[in-house]
Amino acid sequence: MIRLPASVPTRSRAVVHDGLVHAVSVSPMKTPDLYVQSTAALRFLTDSLEAAGSGKDRILSLTVYLTDIGDKAAFNRAWDEWVDVRNPPMRACVGVALEGDDLVELVAVAAVR
Amino acid sequence: MIRLPASVPTRSRAVVHDGLVHAVSVSPMKTPDLYVQSTAALRFLTDSLEAAGSGKDRILSLTVYLTDIGDKAAFNRAWDEWVDVRNPPMRACVGVALEGDDLVELVAVAAVR
Amino acid sequence: MIRLPASVPTRSRAVVHDGLVHAVSVSPMKTPDLYVQSTAALRFLTDSLEAAGSGKDRILSLTVYLTDIGDKAAFNRAWDEWVDVRNPPMRACVGVALEGDDLVELVAVAAVR
Repeated sequence: MIRLPASVPTRSRAVVHDGLVHAVSVSPMKTPDLYVQSTAALRFLTDSLEAAGSGKDRILSLTVYLTDIGDKAAFNRAWDEWVDVRNPPMRACVGVALEGDDLVELVAVAAVR
Repeated sequence: MIRLPASVPTRSRAVVHDGLVHAVSVSPMKTPDLYVQSTAALRFLTDSLEAAGSGKDRILSLTVYLTDIGDKAAFNRAWDEWVDVRNPPMRACVGVALEGDDLVELVAVAAVR
Repeated sequence: MIRLPASVPTRSRAVVHDGLVHAVSVSPMKTPDLYVQSTAALRFLTDSLEAAGSGKDRILSLTVYLTDIGDKAAFNRAWDEWVDVRNPPMRACVGVALEGDDLVELVAVAAVR
């Protein structure tokens, strides 16, 4: 089992076990623009997946948490620029409350290469 | 890895890999009746799981997203009619915001037969 | 596939299959204190994981649902006392609506020992 450290020592940003990676991502920049946060959170997710021996083309399931579901189009714009259209993940997108200035949080389950 | 296409090309409605299926489901009909949407979403989930070589008796974990947690009894009524009581999944049910006229969204992890 | 029964016959509190456990937990006591509910829900999760042949040091991914994200510090206090810091899970924490007097609900994916 491999754990990639998060910024807080009591959590991991990704855990690899038995061919699967579980990864979480938020935007490092807390701008009030959902499209910008989404692009940054998706990029951070790519980094974590690649550090874990996987990649965005290997995502099985992705949960998208948005603080404003009414702004989902802004997330979708970042998504459409990012997604590997030959390997689209199962995706669920829901509106929730997040801490602080986060507008989006991503949780992915992916297969190792 | 097998991906069952969703209505949008940038997503899959189910992804099968290494004996597991990840599947998402909403009601095709956007009626304002949660019981009706729940029944339809559960039926669509059954279809996806069977198309992926699994079935409702093989669900490991199911997350239920409802826009009105106060109406959970209506979802539970559809659930009780649908669930395989000899093989009940782990289930979490939470209230969130969903896009458009969706009242319920389901995400399942199931084992292939 | 092993299913540990929940209090309701149409659900399981944990399901074990192919080396993975999916487990859900809420606090048995419905006190209005999030720290107390969190401690109890984490303890119940430990019990389910151990009954399933796993443990808190084997958690891959954990989703935390809170009814009041503004009170996340109270959950984090319980978390910091509970977590195995040598084996921190991937964790996502979101604010949602829960039924009744639940203030916190936990969903974990863990590896069997």
